[in-house]
Amino acid sequence: MGRSLAAALCDRGAIVQGYGRMSEDEGRDPRAVWTNATFADLSALARALEGQEVVFHLLGSSTPESSNRDPGEDLTASVFTTVKLLDLCRSASVRKIVFASSGGTVYGVPTIIPTPESAPTDPISAYGINKLAVEKYMALYRHLYGLDYQVLRIANPYGPGQSPFKKQGVVASIMHSALSGHAVEIWGTGEVTRDFIHVDDVASAFLHALDYAGEQRVMNVGSGVGRTVNQIVEDVRDALGLPQIEIVRKSARAADVPVSVLDTTLITRETGWRPRIAWQAGLARTAAWMRGTFGLA
Amino acid sequence: MGRSLAAALCDRGAIVQGYGRMSEDEGRDPRAVWTNATFADLSALARALEGQEVVFHLLGSSTPESSNRDPGEDLTASVFTTVKLLDLCRSASVRKIVFASSGGTVYGVPTIIPTPESAPTDPISAYGINKLAVEKYMALYRHLYGLDYQVLRIANPYGPGQSPFKKQGVVASIMHSALSGHAVEIWGTGEVTRDFIHVDDVASAFLHALDYAGEQRVMNVGSGVGRTVNQIVEDVRDALGLPQIEIVRKSARAADVPVSVLDTTLITRETGWRPRIAWQAGLARTAAWMRGTFGLA
Repeated sequence: MGRSLAAALCDRGAIVQGYGRMSEDEGRDPRAVWTNATFADLSALARALEGQEVVFHLLGSSTPESSNRDPGEDLTASVFTTVKLLDLCRSASVRKIVFASSGGTVYGVPTIIPTPESAPTDPISAYGINKLAVEKYMALYRHLYGLDYQVLRIANPYGPGQSPFKKQGVVASIMHSALSGHAVEIWGTGEVTRDFIHVDDVASAFLHALDYAGEQRVMNVGSGVGRTVNQIVEDVRDALGLPQIEIVRKSARAADVPVSVLDTTLITRETGWRPRIAWQAGLARTAAWMRGTFGLA
Repeated sequence: MGRSLAAALCDRGAIVQGYGRMSEDEGRDPRAVWTNATFADLSALARALEGQEVVFHLLGSSTPESSNRDPGEDLTASVFTTVKLLDLCRSASVRKIVFASSGGTVYGVPTIIPTPESAPTDPISAYGINKLAVEKYMALYRHLYGLDYQVLRIANPYGPGQSPFKKQGVVASIMHSALSGHAVEIWGTGEVTRDFIHVDDVASAFLHALDYAGEQRVMNVGSGVGRTVNQIVEDVRDALGLPQIEIVRKSARAADVPVSVLDTTLITRETGWRPRIAWQAGLARTAAWMRGTFGLA
């Protein structure tokens, strides 16, 4: 998401300072300046923030599943460090911060589908709790210090640039396994349903959030369409033109909610944003990127 | 609250292990065993938890106002340490944990008065955010490990045992100032409205939460009646039989919501609990305790 956002900002003529751990140079936009440092390195962070008007906060290295193995560590790495970031934003006179929250985890097991922003927030992962706590801290710093903010509760992003080697990013994971001839691992029945949104559509939502000056501080970003993991396997197979994809079934994971589909009425009404990249076209772009990047046929 | 709860538990025949920093022995129930240690002392905490069936978590040393001065510190002291407590409860095979959350801060500026549990939760203090995050962690540990829990969102407690020297506890503070001939400090106009509940009624709510086996995990505990700080000054004056109380007005505090009055329909319906101690009787008991404890006329 960060790379797509940086490119979109550079396209608009913004002066972009990227920040985060980047294991390889590929995909970094050459028009941006990049600082390769950890989120916890507060002195590097303070230097990177100097003179910045707006901050997009997309940092985070855990997944819902990994966060549950050590919630205390995840709390420190995500919420504590974000509070320090907010303090640094105050010092640097940053005007606005836009936060990538998680539409797939903050609601927990949804009581309403598609799920609007006003739905109950009962996460079943430390990851979701910590995203929610960060949202509340953003509101607190606005209340106390006038630091403006915008929260985007993003559904499951997919697309070029997404690593297939992490435990998050089911499209990338399935596609890479299929292209390299490995079996695809599916946790549970495969009927787990998610809302997939292309990273370039997410980047566009960030730009809309940047320009937005209305009253709504928390908005969902998704396609509004639910797809099961089993359907994704079929769609990826079609996108790759393969006769079939081998599947290995594993037991279900405790951090996975059964369904996550977001109601995106609010962001469309407030900002005019809507997703532009159709599912099949998005898969085709992702496949082209993955074949090129990993040299797969 | 801890002392009243310990007494109520001992009255019921429970074997009680108290834990926390206690600066003086007065008020500690001699029927309970007490460990004088900090919340962060995890080895002392682990020892105190050995063999316990139920844990009541009332620990916390910050106030809404103090929490906003260093949110990161408050986050570590409250949420991080509670996550460690939950891990220790798992190890010790604790069956249930009952948490004293904050009805006066988790809702933020209320949109509905009196405020039900289903109302939005938008705290304007780190204190409130952290109480809310702890609630979510309780739910997570139940989901992951079956550790049962009950959250009580308690309104403003008052009564015997409440220190008049902290920045929280407006009844104790006003009463002590009046009895010792000092001017009462009031932040803002004094029209800030709160819901006061006697500590013995809170202790009774904890016992109801202990016995409760229904589906509701989060319940408000309050009187359902709103009283302004200006009214409290008048009522304390009456309770003490003083002709008048001198007031010094200070500027309003950013962490104070204008109104907090809780809807307690849920806990009454689910558990049968209701407040038993009338306001005037509660103030009279508090005055008698304060005169005796501090030797004031």
